[in-house]
Amino acid sequence: MNELDFIDRLKEIATHPAARGLADDAAVIPFGRQKLVLTHDMMVEGVHFLSDANPADVAWKLVAVNLSDLAAKGAKPLGVLLGYSRSGNEWDEVFMLGLKQAIDHFCVPLLGGDTVSPKEEGSRTLGLTAFGEVKGHIVPSRGGAMAGHSVYVTGAIGDGWAGLQLAKRGTNATEATAKLLKAYNRPQPRLDEGRALSTLVSAMMDISDGLLLDASRIADASNVAIEIDLAKIPLSPEFMSIFGDDQNSRMNAATGGDDYQLLLTASPETVLPVPAVKVGLCKSGTGLIMLYDGQIIKQPMNLGFIHA
Amino acid sequence: MNELDFIDRLKEIATHPAARGLADDAAVIPFGRQKLVLTHDMMVEGVHFLSDANPADVAWKLVAVNLSDLAAKGAKPLGVLLGYSRSGNEWDEVFMLGLKQAIDHFCVPLLGGDTVSPKEEGSRTLGLTAFGEVKGHIVPSRGGAMAGHSVYVTGAIGDGWAGLQLAKRGTNATEATAKLLKAYNRPQPRLDEGRALSTLVSAMMDISDGLLLDASRIADASNVAIEIDLAKIPLSPEFMSIFGDDQNSRMNAATGGDDYQLLLTASPETVLPVPAVKVGLCKSGTGLIMLYDGQIIKQPMNLGFIHA
Repeated sequence: MNELDFIDRLKEIATHPAARGLADDAAVIPFGRQKLVLTHDMMVEGVHFLSDANPADVAWKLVAVNLSDLAAKGAKPLGVLLGYSRSGNEWDEVFMLGLKQAIDHFCVPLLGGDTVSPKEEGSRTLGLTAFGEVKGHIVPSRGGAMAGHSVYVTGAIGDGWAGLQLAKRGTNATEATAKLLKAYNRPQPRLDEGRALSTLVSAMMDISDGLLLDASRIADASNVAIEIDLAKIPLSPEFMSIFGDDQNSRMNAATGGDDYQLLLTASPETVLPVPAVKVGLCKSGTGLIMLYDGQIIKQPMNLGFIHA
Repeated sequence: MNELDFIDRLKEIATHPAARGLADDAAVIPFGRQKLVLTHDMMVEGVHFLSDANPADVAWKLVAVNLSDLAAKGAKPLGVLLGYSRSGNEWDEVFMLGLKQAIDHFCVPLLGGDTVSPKEEGSRTLGLTAFGEVKGHIVPSRGGAMAGHSVYVTGAIGDGWAGLQLAKRGTNATEATAKLLKAYNRPQPRLDEGRALSTLVSAMMDISDGLLLDASRIADASNVAIEIDLAKIPLSPEFMSIFGDDQNSRMNAATGGDDYQLLLTASPETVLPVPAVKVGLCKSGTGLIMLYDGQIIKQPMNLGFIHA
């Protein structure tokens, strides 16, 4: 049974509407007068983080990527539960420092979880559950985009990808490299933006696996085509200063993942309450249409990072 | 940093009252007019299950042990999220069968989670988050037992331990061995009992690590001494038919763990709404007092199974 078979089998089991077909960033379940939003994301050494990564950064990222799923639902985080496999060495200690930094920074309490000590050491595997609340009744999904709606991102794309390249190859410490490394190691989930946008968007998700791959997921879930113009994707000055601004570097930014910006669609009349850059358009049809400066270009083989 | 240092460090971080000092079965957080109860328990190959265990049983147990934590809070389960490391072989397939059986049996929906594929294989590690609701305001903890209160268990103790012995050594299939193996492999969390008892008890928890160890935890959390009489511990006919009924076999039952019965204390005037057997008494003082048929006996070196 391969990865996709396995997930298909899980989907057959997860028939409850709150599971959203396992095709959304989080589960959403009515709870009293509110909605409860829950997510559980894992990180694996060698897949989601480098083996020589700073454990404090890994801890931060574990919290941040889960909170990013809550941001995509416009949820206010209420707490996290940690699932931790102990190493029994200094790694644990440094991890804990990063965990405390993240907990404090995002003001989200650690409420429980479990720690275990595996007998045989394999790839380090970490899990975190984050949950939050939505007061209103509207919780965005990936499935509401309509032809004619605009496609936006909440900030620079590609800094996470750029940081990963720098982390892999080693680099001189400059202001620009430090900022890109930080974008990769210490992502900032768009919690405030998510809450401000959640009742205004037609679809929303966080960009973890690459803008193009994630846009194609909204297209699929919404039964629309999504046209993305690479030339419109916002790049940071730091990204451009090191990786340039041509079609190739823009394609790297759009497929690299680890952005944790929000990707959203909204009617063109909607006035968005937070800064966002229009990168494309929803059209009738299916799948992704790639443009560069208004001209149709070939789609890349990989739209993003498939790492499950 | 050893295990206990690590958990102490976690406790320093988990200062929110809903975390209950990480010294309870689950986190309890007010949510609208209700209370939300959350738990995340992990299971590791070679620690929590045998390497040759049936993966369907492992899946069942992963769900059951988490639901047992909800039972201890009197919570109604609302859903689970799975954190799964894929093997990429038949193990996954059989696991999925057991997962579906458990989900269906306990009527608790699978709502999400994550699957990953570790690069290097170590001990199989699985995680599950379960959450539920309590409608009233009273959620039992381990900390409310008072001197003079009686100590009860909701059913037979030792069947889980007995099943593990049979699983380890292999055995002829008889009605008795089948029942004991099932008690170990397919535990039944006391969800209905937990909900019926939750507003009447002074303290409650589920017995996962051994009756004596778990009783000592209630004693510590409540600042009382707890006296347990081994002779009063209910054993199943199947347990007695294979492992006998003497002090030694009762000590095995009381320290073996994997019972998933509820352990509770209540005022002697309280009429319990579900069957429960009185096994001891809370007294002023601290720690555990062991009796066998009314006579004080020596405490065992290990009160239970410390496996984190």
